[in-house]
This record gives sequence, structure tokens and C-alpha cells, in this order.
Amino acid sequence: MINKNLPILPNEKNVIGILGGGQLGKLIALSASKSGYKTHLYCPRGDNPAEMVVDKVTNGEWNDFEKLVQFSEDVACATSEFENIPSKTLELLSGNTNVIPSNIVFRCAQIRSKEKEMALKSGFNTPKWFLIKNTDDLITATQSLGNKAILKTNSFGYDGKGQFRINSNSNLFEIWEKLGAVECVLEELLDFKREISMMYFKSRDNTDGFFPLSENFHENGILKKTIAPAILNDAIKDELKLKTKKLSENLNFYGIIAIELFELVDGSIIFNEIAPRPHNSFHWTLDGCENSQFDILIRTICGLPVKDVKCNTRWEMKNIIGDDANNLNEIYSNQNYLLNLYGKKNIKPGRKMGHYNRQII
Amino acid sequence: MINKNLPILPNEKNVIGILGGGQLGKLIALSASKSGYKTHLYCPRGDNPAEMVVDKVTNGEWNDFEKLVQFSEDVACATSEFENIPSKTLELLSGNTNVIPSNIVFRCAQIRSKEKEMALKSGFNTPKWFLIKNTDDLITATQSLGNKAILKTNSFGYDGKGQFRINSNSNLFEIWEKLGAVECVLEELLDFKREISMMYFKSRDNTDGFFPLSENFHENGILKKTIAPAILNDAIKDELKLKTKKLSENLNFYGIIAIELFELVDGSIIFNEIAPRPHNSFHWTLDGCENSQFDILIRTICGLPVKDVKCNTRWEMKNIIGDDANNLNEIYSNQNYLLNLYGKKNIKPGRKMGHYNRQII
Repeated sequence: MINKNLPILPNEKNVIGILGGGQLGKLIALSASKSGYKTHLYCPRGDNPAEMVVDKVTNGEWNDFEKLVQFSEDVACATSEFENIPSKTLELLSGNTNVIPSNIVFRCAQIRSKEKEMALKSGFNTPKWFLIKNTDDLITATQSLGNKAILKTNSFGYDGKGQFRINSNSNLFEIWEKLGAVECVLEELLDFKREISMMYFKSRDNTDGFFPLSENFHENGILKKTIAPAILNDAIKDELKLKTKKLSENLNFYGIIAIELFELVDGSIIFNEIAPRPHNSFHWTLDGCENSQFDILIRTICGLPVKDVKCNTRWEMKNIIGDDANNLNEIYSNQNYLLNLYGKKNIKPGRKMGHYNRQII
Repeated sequence: MINKNLPILPNEKNVIGILGGGQLGKLIALSASKSGYKTHLYCPRGDNPAEMVVDKVTNGEWNDFEKLVQFSEDVACATSEFENIPSKTLELLSGNTNVIPSNIVFRCAQIRSKEKEMALKSGFNTPKWFLIKNTDDLITATQSLGNKAILKTNSFGYDGKGQFRINSNSNLFEIWEKLGAVECVLEELLDFKREISMMYFKSRDNTDGFFPLSENFHENGILKKTIAPAILNDAIKDELKLKTKKLSENLNFYGIIAIELFELVDGSIIFNEIAPRPHNSFHWTLDGCENSQFDILIRTICGLPVKDVKCNTRWEMKNIIGDDANNLNEIYSNQNYLLNLYGKKNIKPGRKMGHYNRQII
């Protein structure tokens, strides 16, 4: 039975379900617990930092429907820490509990072509793009984009995985095979000035708001650094907010959602992608704002009122990736580096081990 | 073997030991874990909110010396969340691991007469006081203080427990019996304007610093509200800091320590008591400062450098006591109330269930 009584206030029955055991799951659980909610984590067995801070864990695969049904019967609502959660899993859970953001939102985030169509419909500009179903499509589209493009699998990409740059020397057949000969999108390769991200949130009581903008810096396709609040012309900001609200309406959205954007040299803003979950580029809110993105997520899924989150200081967030975790002496030596290590057991190249926030002038 | 190599940086061997499983233990553990340290909690079996967030728990009594020895061999250092930890427990642990603050500091905090002597030696003013060993002492001292005094057990009092006000109508024999006929101190009853608290910290690398002052409001002997930073004349503040550093030297102190003070109507400042541990009146630092008192405690016991913690905004902290925990609807309805519930299972009158912080103008 889906409980539609709002707000969901903490009690023995009102357990918050969390899908996915990584650092985002952990930080969601810590916020929930601080507000008095019990948490129940669902994730496959593995090196799951979230397991340490939740009240209950179910280790199960995403297609273990029996375990998922049991889980869904135990929670008052559920949210996912990652957007690539299988659609069937969310559909199943939605029959028994409030899944926020909804399956529709996750589907949109998972399929690049759907995502771009939705962005366009909501007023955003996107790079020129083509849906690619075979090598013939790829050849035609590559020519049409002047041999300067980026090919991405239509589903399940993140952190630069599942994508290749294409130029006039590229072997298109080889690249097609490397990506698994699956449906792709070919995008115009933009010469952008910077990447910024927005975070919008809407509570189930229909109140909503924004965090200040983030400006992001990548290395090897992975977010390395965020500076926030990012400076952007107010009129442009207001326009982006309107488009974001339009997108939210189109998706009947509740929860929190990050929108990654490119700013081109001419100042125009281009939609890149959405992530309907806490986002690495807003980890600075853990120290820089009264309410972190995790605090606000809990409020939205429980139907507690929300409003814009402000920040009067300026912050840098830096990710601690892979081997960085073995070289933290400088960080430890200065109390202004606000370190947050996720507690992952194994260091692997490219793995996000933690981050730090630091107030800057 | 006591490891004197500093700093203690996180690794499999460098586990932080926490004595006591209440909210302070929990918040210490959360800070330790965020910085990458493993934690091992020692506390008697019970409703211990800290158990949920530590890596390892030993449930044992404070006189279970076998368990205590095992615990001490597992940790690189240990700290206590409450000052009334038995002296013998700390002595035993000190043989095997770094206990910070030291046994000497805790002894001083546990025995009011020692505490007052140390305060006087360090330059603080204390209320007039007498050590009371029997009813004869009590009668003489009461007369000497003009029949307006407060009688406190010399050891193991907190939150207004173990104390009685005395006036000319008091039955001194009855009060003496009610307090258990144990050694007491009789203190002059001060007509103070307000209570303020200081927090000083000193790392094992000998760096040190202060938090901004707190101003405290009590109800039924229990802290109800703190406003911070408290406003106080700079010259007076500097003098208090010097005296605190003197006290620290006299005790060979490392760790964090709260000093409770009274401001009299004439502006003079009187020493009340010390607490060598995180203090309820500094819970506002969890949201109001870059480093909370728990973050700083971890730095001091691990020998990481520390410095003054600043705050440019103004905060109110309110405790959620006993039945307050059943009336949180107003708190939940506004995201500016930064709620922190400790996760205690049972509500009892006078029990601290949580607190909230709120930025004020």
C-alpha cells in the first residue's frame, strides 16, 4: 500500500529506503538518521560504505524480485543513489511504496535520446545530436557533424564511460564495436568554456527551490573540482530556473535533480544531462550550506516544506580519487580542509574515495 | 605499548577508542569516521546511540578490567564522552594506550574541591566555598555564608543532580542525608547575570585554540538553550583565555575542555566548573563552524595541528529534552531548524533526545 499521507514524519513504520550502497547512499542515510528517520538499505553484496550507517541492510541483486518486494513492504518511501538503477526494479518497487524521484524521471535520465528530447521540450538548448542504430547511421551523422563529434551509448554511461571522441581519422566500425554495437547517440563536440551544474528540488508537498550553482572541473572524464557558488548573469540564471521548472513539470518530478550544463564561449548555455539524485558537484553543500543536498533530499521525499538554499561564502570541493587517498598528509595538516572519507575498503584507480571542502576567498 | 609517534593518521592499526555510548560518543565517532579513522566503542550494555555508527563495540562495565585491557590493546588512543568515568578505569587504560584528556584532568573535573583549587591556582575567581565532611562542617559553613548557599556532593554530579539549595529554613541534617552523607562542598549562592562557557583545545602536537564563547540558559538544572558567539568585552575575554591556558599547563592538558563561567551583575567572571570533553553548549559548532567540537577533539587526540575556530554568524542551539521529542512538528516544518536527533530508543523525562541549531540575526 502506498502511503500518501504527508508529511512522512519519523516513527517505527516510516522507514526510508535507500537503493545503492555507495557514498551517496551513505550520506543520504546520515542525513535521514540525523532527522530521526530509520533507514533500510538495499544493495548487492560488496564494498558498500553505506552499510555502516543504516539501521537495516538487504543485500540483493537488482533483479531479485522476492527480496525487492520484501524491502518495499518495509519502507515508507525509497530513493536511489544512482540513476542507472534498472527500470524494472523501480517499477516493481513503485507498486508497493513511494519511489522518489519516480521511475519516469529515472527512465529519462537513463536514455540519452529521451533526456535530450525532454530538455528540448522544456526550452533548453542541446548540442546537435543523432540517434545511431547502426554503422550506416553513424557514418551519415559523423559527416553531417563535420567529423568532430562524440559517440555515447544511449543508455548507462557515467563518468566518461561508454563514450568515444570521433574525428576524421576515427575508425567508425571499430568504435561502434568497442561500444558494444548498441544504440548510441552522436553529439556535436562543443568547444565549451566551462561546465556548470544546477540543483533543483521539489518536495511532495509541492514546495520547491534551488541550490546556488556549481562550476565543475574534470580530469579524465571524472569530476575533480567544484567551485561554488558559480557566478552567472542573473537573467540567464532566471531563465535556466524557468526551464528547469518546466522540465520538472513535464516529468511530474519530485526529489532532487542535478542538471549539467555547458557554457559556450559566446555565453550561451547548453544542456548536457540530468542526474535525479545527489550529485558530486554539490558535495560542497555538506559544509557550505545550512542544509546539504542530502538533507534536502530527505525533506522532499518525506513531503516536508523546502525553499531556496543560500550560501554567502565561497567553496572549493575537491575529489579524492584512487591513489589520492594515500597522499592526504597535507589535507590532515590543515583544519581548513574539511575532509570526508567515505570508508571504502579498496582503493582502485578512478574510484572516488572521498572529498574535501574548503572555504575560499 | 603507548604509541607516541605523532600525528596518528588513519590506518588499520590506528583505531580511535571511545569511552561511553551516548550522543557525545556518537558524534565523536561520526567525526572520526568522516576523517577516515576506525572507531572502537566501550560502554556498558544499554540504549547506546553511539553503537550504530562505530566500527566495533565492546559492551562491558567500567570495572571489567579484562575487557578494558583487551579494548586498550586494540586502540591507538582513547577519549571519554563523560567526565564521571571511574578513575581506576582511566588509570588502567593509560597503561596501554594514550588516554586524552589524561586521568589527571578527569580527576580534577570529578572532584569539586580539586577543581576549585586548580581554578584558583590558575587565576580564576571561584564562589566562596567550604569542604564539608560532616554536619558540623555544614552548620558552621552555612552560617559563614549567611544562610544562602548551595550544597553539592564533592564527586559525580551533573545536570543539577546531587545538589541542594540552602536557606535559613533548610533542615541541614535532612539535606545531608539526602545527598548520601558523603563529602560535599558548600558554595556561596551567586546572584549571577548569565552563564557563559568557553571551549579550549590543545593538540598533542602542542598547537591550541579556542571556540567562540557560548551563552547558556538552563531549565530545571539542565541546559535548555545556547546563544553563540556570546558577546563579551575583548579585554575580559583575553584575560579568561590566559587563565584557561594557565589551567591547561597546570594540568598538562591535551584534548578539548569546556569551562563554565558565571558573569555577575558587576561584570566580574566567576569560575563554575570544567568538563574535559565535548560539551552540550558547543553543539552549535556542528552547524555554525567549519570544524565542530567533535572534529577538533579528533584532531587534538591524534596530534594534528589546530588553531582558533571562527564563526561570523550567530546561532541558537536548543535541546530537545524528554517529551519535547514528541512535539517536533514545528521543527520539521522549517528547514532553517537544523535538527539532530540522537537515536535514543526511549524517551524519559529530563533525557536529552536531540537538539536543533538555527542561525539567528
